[in-house]
Amino acid sequence: MIIVKIGGGAGINVEGAISDLAELKEKFIIIHGANALRDQLAEDLGSPKKTVTSVSGYSSVLTDEKALDIMMMAYAGLKNKRIVELCQQKGINAVGLSGIDGKVIQSKRNKGIRVRENGKLMLLKDFSGKAFSINKELLDLLLKNNYTPVLCVPTIDENNIATNSENDDIVALLQNEFKAEKIIQLIEAPGFLEDKNKPDSLVKEMSQNELEKRENEVEGRMKRKILALRKLFEGGNTTVIISDGRTANPINDALNGKGTTIK
Amino acid sequence: MIIVKIGGGAGINVEGAISDLAELKEKFIIIHGANALRDQLAEDLGSPKKTVTSVSGYSSVLTDEKALDIMMMAYAGLKNKRIVELCQQKGINAVGLSGIDGKVIQSKRNKGIRVRENGKLMLLKDFSGKAFSINKELLDLLLKNNYTPVLCVPTIDENNIATNSENDDIVALLQNEFKAEKIIQLIEAPGFLEDKNKPDSLVKEMSQNELEKRENEVEGRMKRKILALRKLFEGGNTTVIISDGRTANPINDALNGKGTTIK
Repeated sequence: MIIVKIGGGAGINVEGAISDLAELKEKFIIIHGANALRDQLAEDLGSPKKTVTSVSGYSSVLTDEKALDIMMMAYAGLKNKRIVELCQQKGINAVGLSGIDGKVIQSKRNKGIRVRENGKLMLLKDFSGKAFSINKELLDLLLKNNYTPVLCVPTIDENNIATNSENDDIVALLQNEFKAEKIIQLIEAPGFLEDKNKPDSLVKEMSQNELEKRENEVEGRMKRKILALRKLFEGGNTTVIISDGRTANPINDALNGKGTTIK
Repeated sequence: MIIVKIGGGAGINVEGAISDLAELKEKFIIIHGANALRDQLAEDLGSPKKTVTSVSGYSSVLTDEKALDIMMMAYAGLKNKRIVELCQQKGINAVGLSGIDGKVIQSKRNKGIRVRENGKLMLLKDFSGKAFSINKELLDLLLKNNYTPVLCVPTIDENNIATNSENDDIVALLQNEFKAEKIIQLIEAPGFLEDKNKPDSLVKEMSQNELEKRENEVEGRMKRKILALRKLFEGGNTTVIISDGRTANPINDALNGKGTTIK
């Protein structure tokens, strides 16, 4: 089993990735983003992405009702169905599911963002949460019958409300259930970079110890990203490959060791 | 088994329909439209619906690449996921699928529309086709495991390309495979009307013979609609109920004989 995370950047060569996947013998599950598409659609509809700053100084995206509508259109609608269509064209019998479908990805709603408005302290609730459970039964049902699941947000929360969540958490949950031998993450960079502004600073290999060391050296989003990577090893041994999704054959490249390999 | 077709008009009370369905003992499959949502989204994105007139004088909607993108967003994205979310909230473990997913609805691409442009006769090809096959295996797999399929276009054509199709044809294919005892169609009218401009001209009951007679009396879209209704009886006996989707309890009303019943 391979878990494939396809980033939502505009530069990712999805068709190349699906062509590569069609040649594999192993079963796989795809989980994809669509942030570039989502942001563009939000702009086009005159509802650009809203960010709020909490009292503790953290900035985060606000998923209100309209943002959730746009997420459904961009992720579960256009992006998911175009990926499924590509899969079918390459001979992969894919079934696209958002986390709501068959409650395949359940999440716990966030408590809210503490903000100050007109001097008053307020708790701003939105439709975001943390994924905590996967409906493995449904995914197994599909896999055993030779359907390839193609997953995306939104997830579904404890009150059965559609909820935005981080794909990194979903990948960790999938790994916890499926114990995949390989996890491939396609991004818009050559892999894990020593300096994110220097494409030639690729870290070819990393150990779990190194991952932990780096986690203590960074902050913010990067810290969360590294923590998410560390979690992938909690359920046992696996190989995580972070690789460039912009090449002609992104999956083949990843499998041939072109990105960052973490063991 | 009940097949429920939920029309895509803005006035349909989807929440009421799902609440009613949650109380039923029978299994059911939902197929929904989203035309009001699609048309609005197309307007909002500055790509309003295009219609072309063929040389033989017929007017039809042109589904180009952009229209297909919008269809995916409106049908498979926003509408489908909001219906699935409602289902989950009412205790129905729904799984939303477009026709592309697991090739659940296959179609044959239309040959094209014969148009005259600058005096030249041309064949205008678009992404539309006629549904001809259902992946019953996948639907059975879901139904047997207590998942309720919630279906919508696009379908997938013989070259694995996403394709717009008529829901009426899909309902006929579903009926051919599932031999449902009842087929409920929720529309934005009290039922089948003697005169479409007179809401009080409801036809309470109709026989199949009457259906055939009426088919010969009308033309255009109405003829196609009646033909589609007649097809529902080809696989054996069933009860078709065309009923008002705008009431507080649209499904209960339909089952209690408020619309047009065809046996």
